[in-house]
Amino acid sequence: MKSISRKIKNEGEKIGFVPTMGALHEGHLKLVDTAKKYTDFIIASIFVNPLQFGASEDLRSYPKDIHYDAKLLENRGTNILFTPSDKEMYPEEYDTSIELPKLSSALCGATRPTHFKGVCTVVCKLFNIVAPNIAIFGEKDAQQLIILKKMVADLNFGIKILAVPTARESDGLAISSRNIYLSSQERKDAPVIYQSLMLAKKLIENRERNAKKIKDEIRNAISDKLTAKIDYIDIVNKKDLTQVNILEGEILIAIAVWFGKARLIDNITLRIP
Amino acid sequence: MKSISRKIKNEGEKIGFVPTMGALHEGHLKLVDTAKKYTDFIIASIFVNPLQFGASEDLRSYPKDIHYDAKLLENRGTNILFTPSDKEMYPEEYDTSIELPKLSSALCGATRPTHFKGVCTVVCKLFNIVAPNIAIFGEKDAQQLIILKKMVADLNFGIKILAVPTARESDGLAISSRNIYLSSQERKDAPVIYQSLMLAKKLIENRERNAKKIKDEIRNAISDKLTAKIDYIDIVNKKDLTQVNILEGEILIAIAVWFGKARLIDNITLRIP
Repeated sequence: MKSISRKIKNEGEKIGFVPTMGALHEGHLKLVDTAKKYTDFIIASIFVNPLQFGASEDLRSYPKDIHYDAKLLENRGTNILFTPSDKEMYPEEYDTSIELPKLSSALCGATRPTHFKGVCTVVCKLFNIVAPNIAIFGEKDAQQLIILKKMVADLNFGIKILAVPTARESDGLAISSRNIYLSSQERKDAPVIYQSLMLAKKLIENRERNAKKIKDEIRNAISDKLTAKIDYIDIVNKKDLTQVNILEGEILIAIAVWFGKARLIDNITLRIP
Repeated sequence: MKSISRKIKNEGEKIGFVPTMGALHEGHLKLVDTAKKYTDFIIASIFVNPLQFGASEDLRSYPKDIHYDAKLLENRGTNILFTPSDKEMYPEEYDTSIELPKLSSALCGATRPTHFKGVCTVVCKLFNIVAPNIAIFGEKDAQQLIILKKMVADLNFGIKILAVPTARESDGLAISSRNIYLSSQERKDAPVIYQSLMLAKKLIENRERNAKKIKDEIRNAISDKLTAKIDYIDIVNKKDLTQVNILEGEILIAIAVWFGKARLIDNITLRIP
């Protein structure tokens, strides 16, 4: 992969990179579309990164169908699919990890304490292997996006991170590889996450600035669904992910909710006028 | 620095990189000589990296004379000297660190618990900025060398690490920027470190294989000097830095000793037949 990507760059082509864990859906394919808009050669990767799963999480059951995924990527114009093995990525005696302790302690990091260390480590490795000009990530994973942008700046990578808006089902549910875990009742209830974000947006448009009041309204809306179990509802400063009490500047409203075995996340970003 | 180094590489020249903290001596200049042997364009950096100093260590008093250093580097054929500021390297809100917990817990890492995290983080940044083909480090910092080689492999950097034998004074003392801290009595006593390593080598040549016995002999020799205060004397497996009881394979004998304000280190590597 390394020698191919260096050859492509030496020929003057720009590489767009879409790292994934497979189980591809329209959200991932929109990342490919964006990569094609800005670069000449598209490399996607599929690697279900064990480092970013906690001990009790769904590493073993994470959906896998690499041939189907490869077809989807090819049809959408991906030039190369890179699928390293666990052993190639983390040989015995592997010892290196990367972390951003401040940005990783909030939101998903609070309930998944080693998750972002795993994400940063694998993305750094993939960046060094693929050497892209641009890498594309989805806005659904808002904290991941903010952390990776910071890592790229902090470690002086010469790589541009592009963000693509969350792809949604017609009822607003953010498309996720984990949606296949949902029972039919859970699937019916899950759009409440996005609905509650839209409710929050409306409250803010109507000049509500008290974060606690907005979070309470979100909590009430979600708690209405019997299959929902809230992990967190947070309103934070988009830059440093610190809690906001009175809304101002650019804020991120981020939510994680369990529906059965599926932990679903969603978010919106707003600039308070 | 980034755009210059990319331009040089695009012109087909190989970059050799010598990262330093300044206070240059013959040991550093030998790194430059080695860089010149293998590459076309030599970049050196001087950055006294605050992240690799502990709270009680000599960051503030670390010797600095950048104009003198620049002259030495130029005379030895360095093409570019890169001297970033603290603020450029670690702007406010900086949050990223890299660590190798297994390799960093032994030897110097035991008494300097955050040291190698600082070293790895700054070297990763410098590698991304300078983008060298080859980077050159001294064997005096044996643990640093082993950790950085591992980091480069683990994170898939396309950079070759070259090691250069320790430069020594005529009495065997390893040349170090910290030797200037020594009083005249301490300077007279300090060569005992290298002498004790040579003693250990002789014992091993005479078929001593018991690590404890060898360490005791080293300890006795060093303790003989009134100004010496031993930090550690260790014999470890060179690959994973784990303690060795009965010598076999490739081993590292590493020593750290305080003489007044100066903490001096030295080591030898031996392959047991």
